[in-house]
Amino acid sequence: MVRVGIVGGTGYTGVELLRILVSHPQVEVSVVTSRSDAGQRVDALYPNLRGHIDLAFSLPELDVLSVCDVVFFATPNGTAMLMAAELLAQGVKVIDLSADFRLQDVQAWEHWYGMTHACPELIAEAVYGLPEMHRESIKNARLIACPGCYPTAVQLGFLPLLENHLIDGRQLIADVKSGVSGAGRKAELATLMSETGESFKAYAVSGHRHLPEIAQGLSGIAGQPVGLTFVPHLTPMIRGIHATLYSQLTLTTAVDLQALYQQRYQHEPFVDVLPAGTHPDTRNVRGSNQCQLAVHQPQNGQTVVVLSVIDNLVKGAAGQAVQNMNLMFGLPEGLGLNIVALYP
Amino acid sequence: MVRVGIVGGTGYTGVELLRILVSHPQVEVSVVTSRSDAGQRVDALYPNLRGHIDLAFSLPELDVLSVCDVVFFATPNGTAMLMAAELLAQGVKVIDLSADFRLQDVQAWEHWYGMTHACPELIAEAVYGLPEMHRESIKNARLIACPGCYPTAVQLGFLPLLENHLIDGRQLIADVKSGVSGAGRKAELATLMSETGESFKAYAVSGHRHLPEIAQGLSGIAGQPVGLTFVPHLTPMIRGIHATLYSQLTLTTAVDLQALYQQRYQHEPFVDVLPAGTHPDTRNVRGSNQCQLAVHQPQNGQTVVVLSVIDNLVKGAAGQAVQNMNLMFGLPEGLGLNIVALYP
Amino acid sequence: MVRVGIVGGTGYTGVELLRILVSHPQVEVSVVTSRSDAGQRVDALYPNLRGHIDLAFSLPELDVLSVCDVVFFATPNGTAMLMAAELLAQGVKVIDLSADFRLQDVQAWEHWYGMTHACPELIAEAVYGLPEMHRESIKNARLIACPGCYPTAVQLGFLPLLENHLIDGRQLIADVKSGVSGAGRKAELATLMSETGESFKAYAVSGHRHLPEIAQGLSGIAGQPVGLTFVPHLTPMIRGIHATLYSQLTLTTAVDLQALYQQRYQHEPFVDVLPAGTHPDTRNVRGSNQCQLAVHQPQNGQTVVVLSVIDNLVKGAAGQAVQNMNLMFGLPEGLGLNIVALYP
Amino acid sequence: MVRVGIVGGTGYTGVELLRILVSHPQVEVSVVTSRSDAGQRVDALYPNLRGHIDLAFSLPELDVLSVCDVVFFATPNGTAMLMAAELLAQGVKVIDLSADFRLQDVQAWEHWYGMTHACPELIAEAVYGLPEMHRESIKNARLIACPGCYPTAVQLGFLPLLENHLIDGRQLIADVKSGVSGAGRKAELATLMSETGESFKAYAVSGHRHLPEIAQGLSGIAGQPVGLTFVPHLTPMIRGIHATLYSQLTLTTAVDLQALYQQRYQHEPFVDVLPAGTHPDTRNVRGSNQCQLAVHQPQNGQTVVVLSVIDNLVKGAAGQAVQNMNLMFGLPEGLGLNIVALYP
Repeated sequence: MVRVGIVGGTGYTGVELLRILVSHPQVEVSVVTSRSDAGQRVDALYPNLRGHIDLAFSLPELDVLSVCDVVFFATPNGTAMLMAAELLAQGVKVIDLSADFRLQDVQAWEHWYGMTHACPELIAEAVYGLPEMHRESIKNARLIACPGCYPTAVQLGFLPLLENHLIDGRQLIADVKSGVSGAGRKAELATLMSETGESFKAYAVSGHRHLPEIAQGLSGIAGQPVGLTFVPHLTPMIRGIHATLYSQLTLTTAVDLQALYQQRYQHEPFVDVLPAGTHPDTRNVRGSNQCQLAVHQPQNGQTVVVLSVIDNLVKGAAGQAVQNMNLMFGLPEGLGLNIVALYP
Repeated sequence: MVRVGIVGGTGYTGVELLRILVSHPQVEVSVVTSRSDAGQRVDALYPNLRGHIDLAFSLPELDVLSVCDVVFFATPNGTAMLMAAELLAQGVKVIDLSADFRLQDVQAWEHWYGMTHACPELIAEAVYGLPEMHRESIKNARLIACPGCYPTAVQLGFLPLLENHLIDGRQLIADVKSGVSGAGRKAELATLMSETGESFKAYAVSGHRHLPEIAQGLSGIAGQPVGLTFVPHLTPMIRGIHATLYSQLTLTTAVDLQALYQQRYQHEPFVDVLPAGTHPDTRNVRGSNQCQLAVHQPQNGQTVVVLSVIDNLVKGAAGQAVQNMNLMFGLPEGLGLNIVALYP
Repeated sequence: MVRVGIVGGTGYTGVELLRILVSHPQVEVSVVTSRSDAGQRVDALYPNLRGHIDLAFSLPELDVLSVCDVVFFATPNGTAMLMAAELLAQGVKVIDLSADFRLQDVQAWEHWYGMTHACPELIAEAVYGLPEMHRESIKNARLIACPGCYPTAVQLGFLPLLENHLIDGRQLIADVKSGVSGAGRKAELATLMSETGESFKAYAVSGHRHLPEIAQGLSGIAGQPVGLTFVPHLTPMIRGIHATLYSQLTLTTAVDLQALYQQRYQHEPFVDVLPAGTHPDTRNVRGSNQCQLAVHQPQNGQTVVVLSVIDNLVKGAAGQAVQNMNLMFGLPEGLGLNIVALYP
Repeated sequence: MVRVGIVGGTGYTGVELLRILVSHPQVEVSVVTSRSDAGQRVDALYPNLRGHIDLAFSLPELDVLSVCDVVFFATPNGTAMLMAAELLAQGVKVIDLSADFRLQDVQAWEHWYGMTHACPELIAEAVYGLPEMHRESIKNARLIACPGCYPTAVQLGFLPLLENHLIDGRQLIADVKSGVSGAGRKAELATLMSETGESFKAYAVSGHRHLPEIAQGLSGIAGQPVGLTFVPHLTPMIRGIHATLYSQLTLTTAVDLQALYQQRYQHEPFVDVLPAGTHPDTRNVRGSNQCQLAVHQPQNGQTVVVLSVIDNLVKGAAGQAVQNMNLMFGLPEGLGLNIVALYP
């Protein structure tokens, strides 16, 4: 059994980790911390967990966490970097769901996140936890930087095209739509139901924190810097991300994009290429760890359109984190993640 | 392994049965029928099941179904009664999620459902599949009439009060709110998103088909006919039922209602009495087989208010059906049903 | 032209007042105050008002407001009572959309609202602004206490029955469902879309601030104290209130309830009795000042069920406030309120 | 007074025409037809219109309609082309909200709409009813082809860039999101709340009927054929379209895009350029005839991102149709259209 700690158990990614881990056959959830709710029973705050967990929130203290084999950070940005080094020093593996170790360029990180990085020496060691790109490194990692939700959907969508140098990497467009749970469980006007229900908008067109993360990943795949326009949108639903990706084919000869995608992902347990001509629906991955993809070439032109959907809280956060944990501990990659999406 | 057939696999209760059964460790789904979609792969119609089921829909024919140990009917009313007798004759158990065998009074059934009953001789044998009331009979049953969604929420809510003769049975009020999935997967104007989104309404105030079913159940508990006012409402969400139940205490001495409810349901795996003073939220049972209850006595008056929530497609349909199956086949009652509700 | 000031223009009732008043042919909006957003253009905060208003928010100061003929308070409870006396002294009429002057019993008010009343001497003068009950007093009033949203829907629903002494006033039940805009524009976890979307719950069953207000109104109608059970619910939509009202007929002879309701409201411009056998839908009053009502007597029993819907921000707040203003200034009662509800 | 007839008054664009026209000071709605609901009162089907209209639906017959000054067709495609010629012959002007006269290329029309055009001789005469492009022609037109909802949002967004030859017209991308009311009021599985709520998807990526219409309009503006990738999406809300438009600047010198847009639209009553750096929200035009636009140049790169929102039923259908009517009859262009959007 893997003894697990969760730091920051009161946000949406924290409670989603709990939903998955309490049913995981090789996991024992030992500690769930929350500075604000310490002492309170977990299932008092989250009655959906009644009967599934018998713990109270504890304070995020090192000695309590050090009994764990692995600690997940489901915290706001800037917290994991304060505790990761000491946990690693005590032999505890760390899976960070926040952005603290995602960017290899510490200056870029400090620019986008507006704070000084407290632990730059660990950045190089951190493995970017996208198994479809870095599976072998993940298996041997002590410290995982889990990808953001937008970056997961976008990178999995562009991956086969960029790996095979089929598109013009200088002109990538990612038009991405997210449910409101991506904004987290925070008391804010902007995500009230009266503000977000029955309405749709783009935001952060001038620059979003996930832009450098996506660009870093795509550049790594392409082997050279990419040019990316990334426009996130807020859509009036709770869970789900839909990325619509546009790029320009550089080939003049025909290429079977459907076969390309199917071949690239045929052994991936959590990336599912849909039949040609279909369109993925975010509801079909709601609550599951799947990414469903479809690739289109409208009017057989030069523009490729890739549609990529995930549940932002699962493949975009907690599920992918558990997938990483399984790899790190030599467990079957899909253990505890064989969840059927909730439809309707 | 229990070999399972599902007749009518294309509706919401059918696909919900599949969601649960493909993860059930003692079940093999052998047949899924659909008259309209025969030949088509199940996961083509329901991409959330991709990777979880490798079957095509077949025609609902007796010889195909007779290889099963049990057949679930997730059909419109009027279908199960045409096939149940022959299946039973071949040794196949039948769990009917429709209304065909719910009412013991065949005349009442024909009045409310507007058709002649094709198989009245089986009505007496059919066991009403509410385990909290009829667990022992269910274990030995060949034919189960699964309760309706509204009736499940309402009966579990009134049960402790009526069993203990604490309230005036002549004046029960059930104000119940349902998500739109309760209306089924049918092409109808009334359940379009543009018609039901951002709006709330009551319907069928003059009389709803679940009224006689609830009254039959409550009268059975009370030991005498009850007087029930039942007002169903449509609420702009997909899953969930919230019953708000009003009744008048007949006692003049104080009674500890919280203790009464906790005691009555302490050994029930799928009825969960919340702490005193709290209010259940339908989201906390979304996708799970739980009924969460709270009991209130506002201003310590004579009016008791019980709040009862279920997921209409799970405890109100497919989950309860599987709970019945487990009982009928001597399996642990909760096998395959230990699902954590999806929050947020 | 009536010169209007709005104190607290940044909440949902404030912006709804603006939506109505900028199209009102006899109104000039002179001042809109907001302590937090003073100096900012109104249409920068509310882009739906672009092109309709050319004002910036000002600080809520007496000398600015005293140029107005009437000041609306769309503030949290406890603000209007601090400024009303001085405005009245300067000849400015006051229409308070908060609860400060709704309860005639100051002790009850202080109990339910948890503060000391700053201006008890004005309570007796304040007219409860429900035109269907107090039209003549409103016409001559200087100070209006606008009814709460729940109280408006409930009182209009019970009014004809209580006025005619047809029901048992000791046992009234109001099961009421509200959209989330009723909770106001405040940064709170509980009204995030992720918390309220796709879910339904009751709240405050043990006692809600609108309970004494409704009881006061109904007792006034009945001529004696009533016994009321009031259970508010939160429904996953933005606008709309649906009250389902239950009461017991005391008559043993038949009464034509449909005729009773039609007759009572035949001259009311904003109460609309629907045809017998129908059910109102909150969407049909969305954005309009109408209350739509239906009355049912299921199975011809003793229980009367009244269905009453309003838009909580219009007839339940801003629209009713303008209706009061029209009466106070001798304008046609419906001026500026002839709005068709937005469907779908 | 303009005597108006509406053919096809039972769909969402029909009832939206009624919402606007019953408050229009220069209009008398004389006839509303519906083949399926003839004889029924309009306000029985649409209770939001109670008190605003006193008509029953009539059959769509020529002699009834010929008393009108103008007839709106809010019908499925293929109906207006059967009646337009005869109405025009009788001196009745025709405003068609369907697609029958939108494409100048009759062969393209027959290809995309899958039927033979019944009235090709009128196509050349029909004026495309986008006032921002064709105001003068509209004033003199007998027959208006109202633009589709997607085409309105997309063309208004690209217009200033294309008119000024600032972008590469061969590589335009329109990623557009629509609320479900755009699918119309039809009993279909795909637009049930259970199917579309809490989910997001693209559709018709291989080709949508609005593609040739948009391409025709943009090519007209550019003065040469454009290359357009158009991907429509369904978003879980009722009203609203959000177009996110991508194009590549061809200039190497800087251009003040904000000034360009403001200048182009400064005299347009229904196109509103938002301040630099902001993002339009569909809710801010809900129920109004406004198009709100924002233009961005992320990271000062070559990619221009234009955000364009409308209410698909107003500026995208009924409102724009009335705007055309006002122009055709010499009325002030905004008469009856000065509607404030409903927020929240």
